[in-house]
Amino acid sequence: MPSFVLEPDRALPFPADQRRVAREVYDQVKDLPLICMHGHVEPEVFAEDRAFADPAQLLIVPDHYVFRMLASQGVEPARLGVPRRDGGPSETDSRTIWRTFCASWKLFRGTPSRYWLEHELVEVFGVDQVPSAETADAIYDAVAACVADPGFRPRALLDRFRIEVISTTDAATSPLEQHARLAADGLGDRVLPTFRPDALAYLDRPTWRADVAALAEVSGVDTGSYDGFLEALRARRAAFVEAGALATDHGHLRAGTEPMEPATARALYTRVLDGGAASGAEVEAFAANLLFRMAEMSCEDGLVMQIHPGVLRDHSSSVFAAYGADKGYDIPVATEMTAALRPLLDRFGTDPRFRVILFTVDETVYSRELAPIAGTYPSVRLGAPWWFLDSPEGMRRFFETAVETAGFYNLSGFVDDTRAFASIPARHDLYRRVTAGFLARLVLEHRLSLDEAVETAADLAYHLPKQSYARR
Amino acid sequence: MPSFVLEPDRALPFPADQRRVAREVYDQVKDLPLICMHGHVEPEVFAEDRAFADPAQLLIVPDHYVFRMLASQGVEPARLGVPRRDGGPSETDSRTIWRTFCASWKLFRGTPSRYWLEHELVEVFGVDQVPSAETADAIYDAVAACVADPGFRPRALLDRFRIEVISTTDAATSPLEQHARLAADGLGDRVLPTFRPDALAYLDRPTWRADVAALAEVSGVDTGSYDGFLEALRARRAAFVEAGALATDHGHLRAGTEPMEPATARALYTRVLDGGAASGAEVEAFAANLLFRMAEMSCEDGLVMQIHPGVLRDHSSSVFAAYGADKGYDIPVATEMTAALRPLLDRFGTDPRFRVILFTVDETVYSRELAPIAGTYPSVRLGAPWWFLDSPEGMRRFFETAVETAGFYNLSGFVDDTRAFASIPARHDLYRRVTAGFLARLVLEHRLSLDEAVETAADLAYHLPKQSYARR
Amino acid sequence: MPSFVLEPDRALPFPADQRRVAREVYDQVKDLPLICMHGHVEPEVFAEDRAFADPAQLLIVPDHYVFRMLASQGVEPARLGVPRRDGGPSETDSRTIWRTFCASWKLFRGTPSRYWLEHELVEVFGVDQVPSAETADAIYDAVAACVADPGFRPRALLDRFRIEVISTTDAATSPLEQHARLAADGLGDRVLPTFRPDALAYLDRPTWRADVAALAEVSGVDTGSYDGFLEALRARRAAFVEAGALATDHGHLRAGTEPMEPATARALYTRVLDGGAASGAEVEAFAANLLFRMAEMSCEDGLVMQIHPGVLRDHSSSVFAAYGADKGYDIPVATEMTAALRPLLDRFGTDPRFRVILFTVDETVYSRELAPIAGTYPSVRLGAPWWFLDSPEGMRRFFETAVETAGFYNLSGFVDDTRAFASIPARHDLYRRVTAGFLARLVLEHRLSLDEAVETAADLAYHLPKQSYARR
Repeated sequence: MPSFVLEPDRALPFPADQRRVAREVYDQVKDLPLICMHGHVEPEVFAEDRAFADPAQLLIVPDHYVFRMLASQGVEPARLGVPRRDGGPSETDSRTIWRTFCASWKLFRGTPSRYWLEHELVEVFGVDQVPSAETADAIYDAVAACVADPGFRPRALLDRFRIEVISTTDAATSPLEQHARLAADGLGDRVLPTFRPDALAYLDRPTWRADVAALAEVSGVDTGSYDGFLEALRARRAAFVEAGALATDHGHLRAGTEPMEPATARALYTRVLDGGAASGAEVEAFAANLLFRMAEMSCEDGLVMQIHPGVLRDHSSSVFAAYGADKGYDIPVATEMTAALRPLLDRFGTDPRFRVILFTVDETVYSRELAPIAGTYPSVRLGAPWWFLDSPEGMRRFFETAVETAGFYNLSGFVDDTRAFASIPARHDLYRRVTAGFLARLVLEHRLSLDEAVETAADLAYHLPKQSYARR
Repeated sequence: MPSFVLEPDRALPFPADQRRVAREVYDQVKDLPLICMHGHVEPEVFAEDRAFADPAQLLIVPDHYVFRMLASQGVEPARLGVPRRDGGPSETDSRTIWRTFCASWKLFRGTPSRYWLEHELVEVFGVDQVPSAETADAIYDAVAACVADPGFRPRALLDRFRIEVISTTDAATSPLEQHARLAADGLGDRVLPTFRPDALAYLDRPTWRADVAALAEVSGVDTGSYDGFLEALRARRAAFVEAGALATDHGHLRAGTEPMEPATARALYTRVLDGGAASGAEVEAFAANLLFRMAEMSCEDGLVMQIHPGVLRDHSSSVFAAYGADKGYDIPVATEMTAALRPLLDRFGTDPRFRVILFTVDETVYSRELAPIAGTYPSVRLGAPWWFLDSPEGMRRFFETAVETAGFYNLSGFVDDTRAFASIPARHDLYRRVTAGFLARLVLEHRLSLDEAVETAADLAYHLPKQSYARR
Repeated sequence: MPSFVLEPDRALPFPADQRRVAREVYDQVKDLPLICMHGHVEPEVFAEDRAFADPAQLLIVPDHYVFRMLASQGVEPARLGVPRRDGGPSETDSRTIWRTFCASWKLFRGTPSRYWLEHELVEVFGVDQVPSAETADAIYDAVAACVADPGFRPRALLDRFRIEVISTTDAATSPLEQHARLAADGLGDRVLPTFRPDALAYLDRPTWRADVAALAEVSGVDTGSYDGFLEALRARRAAFVEAGALATDHGHLRAGTEPMEPATARALYTRVLDGGAASGAEVEAFAANLLFRMAEMSCEDGLVMQIHPGVLRDHSSSVFAAYGADKGYDIPVATEMTAALRPLLDRFGTDPRFRVILFTVDETVYSRELAPIAGTYPSVRLGAPWWFLDSPEGMRRFFETAVETAGFYNLSGFVDDTRAFASIPARHDLYRRVTAGFLARLVLEHRLSLDEAVETAADLAYHLPKQSYARR
């Protein structure tokens, strides 16, 4: 049986001289604390601090990277326990789910999921067998035993993982109750909310009117008018700041930021709130306007803005009907940034009160648009390789295409983005290894000294994320 | 005089440790049979099994990779024997053509054509001199001697090349006579037709009405109405299945797949058939509709669908006027896939009866669109690097950008696409070498074990193409 | 204190065997003369041959690569001495500017500016200390001492830099007085003008009418009509040819080349000249038409055409208002070439009298559009990696993505593009190193012999630029 160990030099480059330098760099940064300013772990996880249910519920069911790969080979998500919202059956036996996953281990070859899962299984849960149909039960038992241990509860893992600070993602309408509880427990500086108003940005969402009503409710501001709507958003931002938030997050389809004339926005808002329809162009214009208004408010309250554009959500309507959102059927589209961001950057891009971090899953814009933008506008930081690009090859290409124009110091440093809490250390570790590999190349090509490489690696892993997300 | 040999380690990576691992992987797969499910060798070649005319007619005149490179330096295609359809003169002396080619050997530096031609000349024809003005005649004589040998006839080469199965490309209106002859000769399982209805897809082709008439003729179905047109296509597909076809092939400009309302399609079809004009938008809509209908029929008859979009054909109207189609003036365009394929995937992408293989010459869509699509839709396989990308660097980038998201097992494995029969082994060999190099890197970075790498290489070279093209 | 030396192997690849081969190739080309056919050094510099003012005025103030990087970290351009046109204050003390720059040396890590500046400081000015707040004054003094030396005057540097020929960029309306003076001094064959009619191409430029008037003035041709306008352009081109020009240069936003109907163009020209407005579409159509007409004239007078499309100029209106053009706020956009260039290439692309060199800052078009176009149209050469892409990684990607389809001999070879005169040798040196590294890889993968690699490197560095810019 093949051994299941984490090679100390995994994901470091070769040949031997590059590996040696990369190792020197990596060793200096591997133990730095983790700054986790963007993620989708639910605040309840930390507020309630309950034990995770079982291996499948911890590692498979909430991780769309995992179940999408099996789905792509014909294993329906329901067979992996992904709950259906259409009333159809879904596997409930976690051991069965786990066996299905282990039997498909081969499918993850060459993917970052494989790297993360290996790291989690070996490093976090002490597994020493390669997943397979034969080893599934033994591994299940080993992970289940860990999960039952109080040392593996979420708050304990915050320490074990050396997480200095972690942000959750919270709807603008969230009352932030869990964060209040965390603050009461002394975790208010360690688990922070992030303000995400996306549900309110798109006028054609079936839930838009309900969300506008909820916004009024939670803010105590009448949202019957566009001005009231903006005022209520401003009030919620203040509440988030009060609760420790450092940032807002915006997951639009396009990066458009053109402001609307207030009169036009008022009329459109009122029409839709009254039950009228908005055209596709109006929907997009309103969303773009919201980004502009959010930037305006960031200048006032100092929240760092994060823009994550370019993903067409719920590409398969049948999968969406069966399972709902975030089920692996979100597909990127080409993302124009230069013209789209111009209104926002032209107005706020040189304002010292403003900071925006730009992400993309369209890597063609790194060298063409994002690096030139980040390399000149003082308000802009270029976010870390995101989602599908949070991978060894994706990160390498990011450094190769972005750094020459943006430099290292206009990057945000590493930002992980995951729903899978246990994968966080693996993701940071991988980034530190790939960073070390890239920097080692610069050293060996005499483009950087070793001392500079070590300092830069530490900046990317720790100091830059901390600085980039400091409230202005 | 420099020696002309094939280095055993050509196209394998260095440094030495990577080359050693790559060599180990390559050695395990280099002798696997060839699966050639997409190509443009004419069925007559195998049906008639005549000797090739001479070196120029075998290696230069039919290969647009070769004559386009000389054209780009001012050598008109006619000087290389490419026939003119405008009545202008074209070189007919094959030895003269061959001399012009050999004198321009330098132009192929750094191109895959150079790799293929070296492989063909040395490995297939036993040439041992580097092509040049001085060596042209000697090489011509050596190749001519081979070509005259019965052991170099097409059917003999099928064996010599270890081709297990090869597909031709056949118009929907083809009566498949050559394939009938091949079946009679016991080659029906080895040389297969592929159903290509492109001539019928674009309403503005000058030949469209004639092709619709030919379709009626060959199918025996009245194509006077849109419904009859679809019925005739269905009948031809059945005839192709009967003749051993496994797949259809679609070379559209755009990847649009939006179905038309049947009433709209009927009216448009009738109007154009009656001599009316279609707008540009209507032409495109009808082509998109045809892709949707073909997918619908694939669910019925199990033919695997291949989509090859994104090439603007006959970019130079003067070259087209002089020489006709496929003369090196086909230039790729940016290809949007996420939105364009949505109607088709939304309807058939999770249907177990359906299989589609997607190709592109716009490599920006690998990481942005195609890998995310192939990495979640069970019906989709991502085709091999195609056309200009069927090259060492193109393949390497393909693996680096597609595998992390799609995994290896949502790839089609290698699919060659050539008119130049003698280049087929070279193309497969190059793919196996580049694959081995990529896998060796994963092994050395501890991202894959050597055993896994060997198994994956064999899957990519042989098993995946076979599985991907298995009729559903 | 860290030593500040130029490592002999800088920017050469490793491992050792690749470096050894790269070194062999590089050594054969490193001393070839420089062909500098595209740049923005002012002709006055050579005509007047005055000493440069001081280190800051030589190396920082005119170099937007340098001051944009500091601007991106919040150091306003005015603090670096960039003059304001809005009347605001700007630092005038060059030593202060120099200190600010040296204290920010860290920001240039990983950028080509770092490589160029190191080369300039060490090789040209003999500096031996790493720039920092502590070393700023000593370095300033060292560079200032050089600058005061007659051996560092512009004409002397032409020799020291081994510049065989250098082109300036001159408005179509330039009277070419400086070039006349250069010719009188025997430098007419060494410092050449380039014809740049961009100011006349865009009907919506505030200065358009004034430029049309200036065109009439300098050409002596009445520009009151569109036909007169074309005639005046033709006259200026003749004057440029007379003054030694080999090329024209066109920096359009889009690559569109569709000709307008003369009647339409006439009416539009007259309307705008008479003070009327042009729509956005008309402005773009007129600019596209101008490219077509310039190609037409190139067939007559043999000037090589250069097209540099795809940059949205002056992205920040506030920076433009404060500082004017070319201040680091020019951001690339996605650039469609296949359809846009079709009218021009269809008409002139196979004409032996015509030569066009195509540049891009959208590197996605290399493998998708530009290499296929350059690899078939005899009139086309693919320009060198431009602007943000004139960097180690940018050049490497260029070779990896363009050469397999275009070959080496459809490339222009190296073309530098700089306002910073003293950086020219560094840029050519870097290109020669990166070229050597790429070719060494081909040698080690047995895709090219060492002799071929050496010849190709010399062609790319020297012979191809000379041939590409030879008047037809």
